[in-house]
Amino acid sequence: MALSMPPPVLPPTASARTLAVCRAAARFCAQRGWAPVREMPLPNGRRADLLALLPDGGFVVVEVKSCARDFLADAKWPEYRDFCDRLYFAVDLDFPAELLPAEVGLLVAEGPEATMVREAPCHKLAPSRRRALLQRYAVVAAARLAALQDPAGQAEIRAALRAD
Amino acid sequence: MALSMPPPVLPPTASARTLAVCRAAARFCAQRGWAPVREMPLPNGRRADLLALLPDGGFVVVEVKSCARDFLADAKWPEYRDFCDRLYFAVDLDFPAELLPAEVGLLVAEGPEATMVREAPCHKLAPSRRRALLQRYAVVAAARLAALQDPAGQAEIRAALRAD
Repeated sequence: MALSMPPPVLPPTASARTLAVCRAAARFCAQRGWAPVREMPLPNGRRADLLALLPDGGFVVVEVKSCARDFLADAKWPEYRDFCDRLYFAVDLDFPAELLPAEVGLLVAEGPEATMVREAPCHKLAPSRRRALLQRYAVVAAARLAALQDPAGQAEIRAALRAD
Repeated sequence: MALSMPPPVLPPTASARTLAVCRAAARFCAQRGWAPVREMPLPNGRRADLLALLPDGGFVVVEVKSCARDFLADAKWPEYRDFCDRLYFAVDLDFPAELLPAEVGLLVAEGPEATMVREAPCHKLAPSRRRALLQRYAVVAAARLAALQDPAGQAEIRAALRAD
């Protein structure tokens, strides 16, 4: 009978997959003492899926790719290098990892956790850019938090701090 | 008849008053482009009610006082000076403002908004302390935000980032 059949297991949509990988990557960062901010707007107009601040002041970008098409459609990922010391892709187990360039680090998510499969090379930020990036990162994180803490003033706070 | 009488207007409790003044002070900051973080743990073991980062990299502490007793019980407020460029008290209209020292700035909250009644003198942070404070501020804000975005991993994230 139809009623006794289990519901079909649907493949996760690209956005659900992106969210799951992003969450696993954020948890990976936090476990190492790297403080992650999601959807971080950069001065070049792009948004990093995740920009993490390390205890030593270093910055890591993690770029989430939900599927091969998502990666192949983005020719501009090298631009993230300009705003971090190390760059990683984060994908899930279904992603064809051989597509990804060897000179970028790789995190692989499985459920809520992620593992580092390949370390990223270090390309140190210039001091002036690091200072500016830290100021931007701090304002974005604080503005989002302040907006959440004052629902009535949320729109005003976001607009005033122009952090997004 | 008893039923037609309006409910009694109870005075707000100290904590409700603190919260209301704190929210108004946070909104005041945001309106000026200062990004406020509430309940900011400082290296000296104290917590600033509000530490705001200015666009030029400056830091402001706003210390909320709910009532005269709250102010008189805190002999250590001068210690906040060591972690900001300018220090303000924030109070509401019922607070006896003449109690407050003239060498500290003053914000007065009325409902959801606050007004600057007295500007604070500037005592510039040393560059090394400013750098360390910005790193701490950024990690606290990002860690709180990351914990909110991952309710299941919240405790783990907060513990790992040791930001509070």
